[in-house]
Amino acid sequence: MKINVGVIGGYQCSEKDYNTAYHLGRLIAREGWVLICGGGGGIMEASCKGAKEEGGLTVGILPSLEGDEANPYLDVKITTGLGYARNILVVRASQVLVAVDGKYGTLSEIAFALNEGKPICGINTWVIKGLIKVKTAQE
Amino acid sequence: MKINVGVIGGYQCSEKDYNTAYHLGRLIAREGWVLICGGGGGIMEASCKGAKEEGGLTVGILPSLEGDEANPYLDVKITTGLGYARNILVVRASQVLVAVDGKYGTLSEIAFALNEGKPICGINTWVIKGLIKVKTAQE
Amino acid sequence: MKINVGVIGGYQCSEKDYNTAYHLGRLIAREGWVLICGGGGGIMEASCKGAKEEGGLTVGILPSLEGDEANPYLDVKITTGLGYARNILVVRASQVLVAVDGKYGTLSEIAFALNEGKPICGINTWVIKGLIKVKTAQE
Amino acid sequence: MKINVGVIGGYQCSEKDYNTAYHLGRLIAREGWVLICGGGGGIMEASCKGAKEEGGLTVGILPSLEGDEANPYLDVKITTGLGYARNILVVRASQVLVAVDGKYGTLSEIAFALNEGKPICGINTWVIKGLIKVKTAQE
Repeated sequence: MKINVGVIGGYQCSEKDYNTAYHLGRLIAREGWVLICGGGGGIMEASCKGAKEEGGLTVGILPSLEGDEANPYLDVKITTGLGYARNILVVRASQVLVAVDGKYGTLSEIAFALNEGKPICGINTWVIKGLIKVKTAQE
Repeated sequence: MKINVGVIGGYQCSEKDYNTAYHLGRLIAREGWVLICGGGGGIMEASCKGAKEEGGLTVGILPSLEGDEANPYLDVKITTGLGYARNILVVRASQVLVAVDGKYGTLSEIAFALNEGKPICGINTWVIKGLIKVKTAQE
Repeated sequence: MKINVGVIGGYQCSEKDYNTAYHLGRLIAREGWVLICGGGGGIMEASCKGAKEEGGLTVGILPSLEGDEANPYLDVKITTGLGYARNILVVRASQVLVAVDGKYGTLSEIAFALNEGKPICGINTWVIKGLIKVKTAQE
Repeated sequence: MKINVGVIGGYQCSEKDYNTAYHLGRLIAREGWVLICGGGGGIMEASCKGAKEEGGLTVGILPSLEGDEANPYLDVKITTGLGYARNILVVRASQVLVAVDGKYGTLSEIAFALNEGKPICGINTWVIKGLIKVKTAQE
């Protein structure tokens, strides 16, 4: 069965975190996993870009009804019109999640993931009990 | 841009409606459109089967958290845990919809689509003002 | 136990339907039931006005984040930011529903109610199998 | 205008936190504010109990379709069938929030509140930047 891996993180990010997410996307695609994300810029864009360069499948669950905020590396755009309430859909659609950087939106996704008992790793993000902290995408 | 076409209809259906949905799925894939559906059996399964046989991309927005109700022709499974409230997500994620057969669940999707101003065609389904009635998948 | 009665119908309505909804609201309050609605104008406003004049309790589940569309007869405003997706919450929060007049939004609520197996009456509204048609609020 | 104050916190809690939430509920009711919560036990129950003893109005936005988890101090039960996705509705329905104790579910609500720019106080709960830490309900 195909595993859905959720990648969560901020709309803006440092170059270093962008690169981390880009490599994470490549690794996800190489494993044949589906990349699920919020569909926007920053960490989301970087991971989708990486996944597409490896021929992976990318899905963005977007806050708006129109999807204008979508990054250009999405195979499937799920426009929701739910605003940030779509965060919980990103978590529920994923079997495993990885958080890179991120602000309150990412924190809400980390908390939901932990609340629903989903395994979640974090790279350079919030320090929350239960989150598995890793240093590189390879880990 | 890739268009998302929503296919809506019942979990169970007649052989005739299954065939209609199957051909509809083939046509959607041949156009390069993404097929969005509720991910279950019946009309949903038939359209996904058709789309996969033409190399199309299929997405199921599923009611459960676990996705056990998924048909075997889905590239992407979006488990939601929302029950039939996921119907509105099927509508919102689609630019155009086609209803084949179906009961109250399908009616709710038709009504939502019309309410949100989305074009929707119907084949052998509810007779509602605003729904474009067609006889075959080709139309 | 307090029963929640959902009243659904359009944002605009005829004077006749406004009066029907107003009397319906009075009856709901007189029984000690909680009136649940979408919180807007038209049928929703009329029923809330009637309920308040009998000392009842009124709840509006609103589409926006800010609640500016709320009618002035609500004890509780539940702002959702979900747009018309909030319709399903009106249905789920109610044990019984009554539809008065209404367009596609109301139709979506009728369909959801029937789909979730909730009893629903209709006064001068869509003719859908399963909906109990009545002529007056008293019925 | 009536202000909705959201009280968030765990289903189970210590006696000390129960008392804090109980006094918080009394204060909310005394101000004439509406108490919004997730409708369950623990912190939610305590705050509703306090609010009812002061003649306040209490609303529970419940995870289940049936509402069996409701505490006995609710004037309005909003059953949602959304599971913990209902947390975001608690946040969106409130103009101000107070967190008492709590686990990952509470953390998700804190993060959502901060993400949507809502003022939120915390008593003996997660230490998150942006959350206003207070020691007593009176503060």
